Amino acid sequence: MNTGIGFFQIGSIVVSVLAFGLAAWLYKWVVAQPSSNERIAEIGLLIRKGAGTFLKKEYLILARFSTVVAGLILLFLPSPIWNGNPATNIMMALSYLCGTIFSAVAGKIGISIATIANIKAAEASTRGIKPSFMSGFRGGAVMGMAVVGSSLLGVTLLLLLTNNTMVLLGFSFGASSLALFAKAGGGIFTKTADISADLVGKVELGIPEDDPRNPAVIADNVGDNVGDVAGMGADLFDSNVASMAAALVMAVPLDKATGGSINASMVFCYAAIGLLASIIGVATARMGKSDNPTKALNSSTYVTTAIFAILTAIATFTFGFEWRIWFASIVGLIVGVVIGITSDYFTDDSKPPVHAVAKASESGPAFTILSGVSYGLISALPAIIGIAISALVAFKICEPLGAGYPMFGISMAAVGMLSIVGMIISNDAYGPIVDNARGLVEMGSLGDKALEITDSLDSAGNTVKAVTKGFAIGAAGLTVIALLGAFISEVNIAAVEIGKATITGFDIMNPLVFFGLLVGAAIPAVFSAMLMLGVDRNAQRMVAEIHRQFKEIVGLKEGKPGVTPEYNKCIEIATNGAIKELIPAGLFAIISTLAIGFIGGVQAIGGFLTGNIISGLLFALFMSNSGGLWDNTKKYVEAGNNGGKGSRTHKAAVVGDTVGDPFKDTAGPSINTQITVVSLVASLMASIFLTVSLFG
Amino acid sequence: MNTGIGFFQIGSIVVSVLAFGLAAWLYKWVVAQPSSNERIAEIGLLIRKGAGTFLKKEYLILARFSTVVAGLILLFLPSPIWNGNPATNIMMALSYLCGTIFSAVAGKIGISIATIANIKAAEASTRGIKPSFMSGFRGGAVMGMAVVGSSLLGVTLLLLLTNNTMVLLGFSFGASSLALFAKAGGGIFTKTADISADLVGKVELGIPEDDPRNPAVIADNVGDNVGDVAGMGADLFDSNVASMAAALVMAVPLDKATGGSINASMVFCYAAIGLLASIIGVATARMGKSDNPTKALNSSTYVTTAIFAILTAIATFTFGFEWRIWFASIVGLIVGVVIGITSDYFTDDSKPPVHAVAKASESGPAFTILSGVSYGLISALPAIIGIAISALVAFKICEPLGAGYPMFGISMAAVGMLSIVGMIISNDAYGPIVDNARGLVEMGSLGDKALEITDSLDSAGNTVKAVTKGFAIGAAGLTVIALLGAFISEVNIAAVEIGKATITGFDIMNPLVFFGLLVGAAIPAVFSAMLMLGVDRNAQRMVAEIHRQFKEIVGLKEGKPGVTPEYNKCIEIATNGAIKELIPAGLFAIISTLAIGFIGGVQAIGGFLTGNIISGLLFALFMSNSGGLWDNTKKYVEAGNNGGKGSRTHKAAVVGDTVGDPFKDTAGPSINTQITVVSLVASLMASIFLTVSLFG
Repeated sequence: MNTGIGFFQIGSIVVSVLAFGLAAWLYKWVVAQPSSNERIAEIGLLIRKGAGTFLKKEYLILARFSTVVAGLILLFLPSPIWNGNPATNIMMALSYLCGTIFSAVAGKIGISIATIANIKAAEASTRGIKPSFMSGFRGGAVMGMAVVGSSLLGVTLLLLLTNNTMVLLGFSFGASSLALFAKAGGGIFTKTADISADLVGKVELGIPEDDPRNPAVIADNVGDNVGDVAGMGADLFDSNVASMAAALVMAVPLDKATGGSINASMVFCYAAIGLLASIIGVATARMGKSDNPTKALNSSTYVTTAIFAILTAIATFTFGFEWRIWFASIVGLIVGVVIGITSDYFTDDSKPPVHAVAKASESGPAFTILSGVSYGLISALPAIIGIAISALVAFKICEPLGAGYPMFGISMAAVGMLSIVGMIISNDAYGPIVDNARGLVEMGSLGDKALEITDSLDSAGNTVKAVTKGFAIGAAGLTVIALLGAFISEVNIAAVEIGKATITGFDIMNPLVFFGLLVGAAIPAVFSAMLMLGVDRNAQRMVAEIHRQFKEIVGLKEGKPGVTPEYNKCIEIATNGAIKELIPAGLFAIISTLAIGFIGGVQAIGGFLTGNIISGLLFALFMSNSGGLWDNTKKYVEAGNNGGKGSRTHKAAVVGDTVGDPFKDTAGPSINTQITVVSLVASLMASIFLTVSLFG
Repeated sequence: MNTGIGFFQIGSIVVSVLAFGLAAWLYKWVVAQPSSNERIAEIGLLIRKGAGTFLKKEYLILARFSTVVAGLILLFLPSPIWNGNPATNIMMALSYLCGTIFSAVAGKIGISIATIANIKAAEASTRGIKPSFMSGFRGGAVMGMAVVGSSLLGVTLLLLLTNNTMVLLGFSFGASSLALFAKAGGGIFTKTADISADLVGKVELGIPEDDPRNPAVIADNVGDNVGDVAGMGADLFDSNVASMAAALVMAVPLDKATGGSINASMVFCYAAIGLLASIIGVATARMGKSDNPTKALNSSTYVTTAIFAILTAIATFTFGFEWRIWFASIVGLIVGVVIGITSDYFTDDSKPPVHAVAKASESGPAFTILSGVSYGLISALPAIIGIAISALVAFKICEPLGAGYPMFGISMAAVGMLSIVGMIISNDAYGPIVDNARGLVEMGSLGDKALEITDSLDSAGNTVKAVTKGFAIGAAGLTVIALLGAFISEVNIAAVEIGKATITGFDIMNPLVFFGLLVGAAIPAVFSAMLMLGVDRNAQRMVAEIHRQFKEIVGLKEGKPGVTPEYNKCIEIATNGAIKELIPAGLFAIISTLAIGFIGGVQAIGGFLTGNIISGLLFALFMSNSGGLWDNTKKYVEAGNNGGKGSRTHKAAVVGDTVGDPFKDTAGPSINTQITVVSLVASLMASIFLTVSLFG
């Protein structure tokens, strides 16, 4: 039975609407939770306003940036407006704007609920672990549902309206632009505030974490929301859209050749089932009798995974899809879970790497760094082998289906891996909510029992965070491999149009490809270095501001009642600095792509994208895992191991943690977005690089 | 005029003999320099004996290792002995052994003179900077002449005797095996001793550097010799042999096709001219009126470079070689110099990066690390662009000469870059000699003026070291790209023999190639991490031993006359640990290559080698430059900047320096050797991977 694509598109829309419905219900549920503590409400409001300030500023700059980019798209893409069909250029520009707007709205919703849920989770902790967990989890789930619902809805509607897959790449590029701002900008914001607050507060003055006298304390709490909730959400929105776009870009020509629509149908069908599985997973998530939050989060992920596998198998049987492609999706899904587990191994404080780094820290901070860097580098290997094997297996298994199918198989592996993304985002956004809740419990003096409960919820958030980060990197990796296939598709469509020879691949022995490979591999390294230097510079500005406040505001240091620091000044510095430092790094990545394309043409770009993907994955995994490892080593030592809090080992572990902060929350995860942006720029520019280049 | 190859081979032999003659003369000159101080003679002897102990142990293990490898080669390479011509297998095995022996003898000579020249340079410093400089430089030049003379002689004789280029790859593999031991083993040795001596001596007990009470002080001085003299020598011996081997592997089939010998002649001609230019550069090196040692070292390098360019142009004109290939060589040479200059920019203490890291260190060690890592990552970009451009230009410029010439052009760019290697090794070996001399001046109490002179010589050594390291990495990069061409040649020779289709390249869109690329890129990261963890573990062992000696040897801590520590125990630990920690890392690299080859065949190996080269270059440059940057930042702060010695900034800079030590002296430069070893294993196994593989 071959049902028309309309059926699956309508199905996708229905499931998206269901997701929005669930999000709305969860939103109302969270808001309806009781809260009464005035002090908490006051601080919560400061955090909420701070996050609002950042988002407003970021979206304002982004609006200007997008207007310029949309203008350029209008003029030049997919082909110069004076050469082609102006209607297509208008569609492209609009779909680009839609991409930024859909993602921005989802981010705004997520921040909005996260800054309510933190208060609710804090107060619920006085009533026990279960209600507190549910506030945190359901707050995060709003973000998960909003992100995945809007990405599926956006892709479906756009294709329905335009019937042009190129437009999807425009939409995806919009999502990537936003992700670049949200992830890299948010990453710089959060680590600027975190490091500065610690440096002056804990190290210089010896006041505790989350102490309200510290002018950077609100900025620090805001940072958790803008970095981890909005940033990670935008990142996964981006990957999710890109994986669907890549799959559809390859599916539609395959369908055209056979006159059907079965491959495109399959993409929509699987994506919708993935979202449906996440909806069920979220709706049924409960904390079991064991009161173990990590278990609760993981078990709902496993439920989602199993539902996806079963429902897609049924759908494949019912609608006569190719079993080989189903298998490719499942391979992607399994590898995603495996990558999560290996990330966990290298960062969990009950596993050997954390113990080894703690032991090395006894000899001083240099050994914390050396051992952490080493384990981080080693940790990349299993994840990379996983991605390599899944790409190889997906390709080989779909090869008998004919030309074009192998790369389509890889893109479906990416779709499969990202099928549970709704659940992943929910788990990920849970982290900063309960982290904030812990701070509010401390600042609101809700007592030791509440602190103990939020501590345990927070610790589960950290564990799950390492896993979701590994997952996000793996998903981006597989997606950009699929985008390489999409790039070839675009090049060939353009080649046919202008009567040039089509290409089938990129030969490493072609010196242009090799040139691209070498330069492409250097980009993620430099990009991440620019972001880290940005955090460094920005933190220096904020430290100066904190010093100024402690010097000029009388009674602040002593904690005189009624004297409050100027929290907003710190939020402003973090916001302005983040935007300022992010732009050169983003432009560097985009301009290098254009430079290589205009110098070496499509062959050089093929090499460039590949080099970028390979080293990007390596650095993203290395940095995320090293950072997570240092973070947990510090916590492990603070729990009384290898000398415990205040010891020489602890001081060394704190140095590791500070180095790890921008590694894991700024540079590492931003590389995902960088490689996606570069891949999309390349695909969009395909026809231009084909006609205008120095050596190509 | 097309002269037969015999003429150029004889010329090469003559120039090699000239180099040995100069080495012998310089050796005698250094030995003849006056020395009379007993204390210095005594300590010098300890260093000499310690280096001897390490070399003996290393060569013993290497002898066992090589015997096993030679046995395997005898059985399986170039094809199983029961299938092919046993004589070829015997030649291969013997040439492999020759490669290890030639390199080992050159290393032994270098260590032998370096541990005499250090004494001579120390005592000469009482007579002024010029004689001290000359002792150091001429000591280093013995190593330079021995290494390049023996590599050229070895390659020439082997080809003359066997007339089989495959045998050259065996010779090259022998050189690589030795380099792996010498560079990675020496790197672990030197940093184990350096870090442990500092940790207990300077940090715990507060006694000065090079204090004879410290049980690790002799091991530390020995380390400079075994790491930098023997290690770097073996590394460049390896690159030099590999570049000639790769060029000849490609030249001979090109010559066969036209019935002449012009391309192979050109390889010998250029290599001989390179050595001749180095001989002239070394023989004429003098310190000018300015008494500036850096200037003296650099100006003789420029002299060598200019002589090479001029003489090769004359030869090309006289013998009717292709001007395009001449141009490719010159491009390689220029890029080598440019890479050296950019490495210098990122590590020189008069340039912005060092100042920025010193400034960041004011906020604590975490910022030393973050900024140093960032600048290190950025520093890789210009060097990689340089390598990418030189490969592209060499390829494009030789493309009109016909099939096979473009890759030959790249190999000649590598030969061009390595033409001045004799001079480079001389400069590089100069560094540890004057570093040792400085220590001897301190321990022998030769006075402040002598200390000032050796300080200035040492500082020049450090500056030049950064440049030569960048050069070594660049040379290895270009060489392994050429080896990729050699790999294809070998595959095709085997393919023709067994009646399989020949290959022309590696398509990235072939999933096996992509699989190889991903996994290959992860290898250098893991390899370097294993070495760093090895240093960490080994340093912990040595620290325990130093603690034991200070506890058990009565009067040692107080410096009671006649009480000496058991220096040999520390040398033993460094030696045994180095060998023990190096073997798993080396096996890991080799076994991964075999695994990928047997899984994915030649296509996967093509991707694997490329991934390895790309990420290897990136990590080698990053680690070497970050390490150099931290080293010089510490020295810059110690010179009184940003708070000066003993300040908080200084403590942070010391952490950076300790992290940088294994980065720049163990992991970074060993990656060179790792990628060469892997490339040669692949080329040697080409015919086997072609016939036996799971998916290939």
